[in-house]
Amino acid sequence: MRRTIDWADGAIVVIDQTALPAEYRLLELRTVGELIDAIKRLAVRGAPALGGAGALGVALAARLGGDVRADAELIAGARPTAVNLRWGVERALAKLGQGADAVLAEAQALLAEDEELNKTASAHAAEIVLAECPRRPLRLLSHCNAGRLATVGWGSALGVVWHLHERGLVEEVLVGETRPLLQGARLTAWELAQAGVPYRVQPDGAAAAAMARGMVDCVLVGADRIAANGDVANKIGTYGLAIAAAHHGVPFVVVAPSSTVDRSLADGTGVTIEERDARELTEYAGIGITPPGADVFNPAFDVTPAALITAVVTEHGRYEPS
Amino acid sequence: MRRTIDWADGAIVVIDQTALPAEYRLLELRTVGELIDAIKRLAVRGAPALGGAGALGVALAARLGGDVRADAELIAGARPTAVNLRWGVERALAKLGQGADAVLAEAQALLAEDEELNKTASAHAAEIVLAECPRRPLRLLSHCNAGRLATVGWGSALGVVWHLHERGLVEEVLVGETRPLLQGARLTAWELAQAGVPYRVQPDGAAAAAMARGMVDCVLVGADRIAANGDVANKIGTYGLAIAAAHHGVPFVVVAPSSTVDRSLADGTGVTIEERDARELTEYAGIGITPPGADVFNPAFDVTPAALITAVVTEHGRYEPS
Repeated sequence: MRRTIDWADGAIVVIDQTALPAEYRLLELRTVGELIDAIKRLAVRGAPALGGAGALGVALAARLGGDVRADAELIAGARPTAVNLRWGVERALAKLGQGADAVLAEAQALLAEDEELNKTASAHAAEIVLAECPRRPLRLLSHCNAGRLATVGWGSALGVVWHLHERGLVEEVLVGETRPLLQGARLTAWELAQAGVPYRVQPDGAAAAAMARGMVDCVLVGADRIAANGDVANKIGTYGLAIAAAHHGVPFVVVAPSSTVDRSLADGTGVTIEERDARELTEYAGIGITPPGADVFNPAFDVTPAALITAVVTEHGRYEPS
Repeated sequence: MRRTIDWADGAIVVIDQTALPAEYRLLELRTVGELIDAIKRLAVRGAPALGGAGALGVALAARLGGDVRADAELIAGARPTAVNLRWGVERALAKLGQGADAVLAEAQALLAEDEELNKTASAHAAEIVLAECPRRPLRLLSHCNAGRLATVGWGSALGVVWHLHERGLVEEVLVGETRPLLQGARLTAWELAQAGVPYRVQPDGAAAAAMARGMVDCVLVGADRIAANGDVANKIGTYGLAIAAAHHGVPFVVVAPSSTVDRSLADGTGVTIEERDARELTEYAGIGITPPGADVFNPAFDVTPAALITAVVTEHGRYEPS
């Protein structure tokens, strides 16, 4: 399988996630403006993938010349919540003094690492899930997309599913559709279908009922930013899932590479939460849903307090707040 | 304003709720088959409105002749969860021995009562909300549609909003869009816009985050069936809202006419939960969302235990389990 984001022939090449699952399409991004547009439209998304996008963006800017530091700042600010984006930008930018080739080499090293780190993190998480959940095979619930498409390769929360599925231990994955942009129904469902893992898509509001019916052994999600104390910012709806999981005694496991940890934040209250365009809620594919001019509350993320989380797992194993 | 469901010139006339808010359209239903189709498609929906539909359906069947009792059974079974549908059917059917005109008169009496009962129930609930929530003006959160469109007139949970808005006590209503059929984004938003009440539509997954930010003083919902012990079956997503509300100490108030109470059910575990068509999740307006052939978990309702509910309110005031 090709990487979600990669470098080829002087361009950043991404799988266009706005087109899936109807169409598998690659985008070649040849300017910083095109990259920023792709990030803002969520053609490329997912915190670890955004780390790759940040690093490759600086490599692209360095190759094109111009004010690389200004470009880097624009890229890092394209989405405010994922700390990985700025982390990728800064990691590549640190090589700028050694020239454009060194910046690109650093970005490519970051891409190569991402798959390994996510494989390791999700392997650790799989062991934790097996220890926490006695039932076999497992019924897992995920939200948004924390798969291969959210990373450069392999995936974080869905990476756990791949490890467990290889061992024949997955009965079903319940997929929260993840309104408004339906990353669960579109992207996670597509990845599970590709991998031959049984799944069912459900409205986000059905998760608590599924837990009450005893249909869920464990909830698995990714993270867009992890505060030093273990609070987790992730796709809107994650927090409500965590409350429901705690209410039902269902383990709630967060999987992410350690680049997602932001030690500059003591806790989740400091995370900037991006508010997205009203049209994500007021229309679908250009067809109006709400009355014209409806106001919306459309935060892209919420914050789940560490107290509701069974384990935050990175490539280093269970994250222990410092 | 005209009734959501009414009788005119030998036909049942309903506001077509599948067309709102884009189009305000009336349907004239002249056969039992047309009525059942309208109920199944949710052109008419909402437990109290379904009570009216059940009674008018029997009146229509009695007028058309044929096997009225068989028709009545088909109507009562068109949707399994709302107890009001069968209640309306049986109330009208009890007059069958007195002829078709008597059946119609009973159905019309039921329609006339509905608005009064909902006005009274929501007035009781408004007092409870004011007693439970000290902040003025109030920020209310509702789910699905429990307004005029869910009843013959006035509304149940939204009826509380109308009472409070008349007194200038409503700052905003947060409207859960209510996937998959978006009754919040389409119908509740439309009713609030018509009434000039400030509102914002949000993804269902944003409710817990809104509570955590202190944006919600009270949650108000309707009910499709209330068990003797006070457990409430309502639109999928209600249960997760109730768990989140309890977690944040936000009052959670259910409003419904007493015809929604089913004393034959000791508790909510006995409620039949309707599973709806996969296409509600796999496509929107004929446009595919998920991978082709995706399986779904699409229960129309969930059950909220009485322990999570601040008050169940009918026209008799606070419901006290027998």
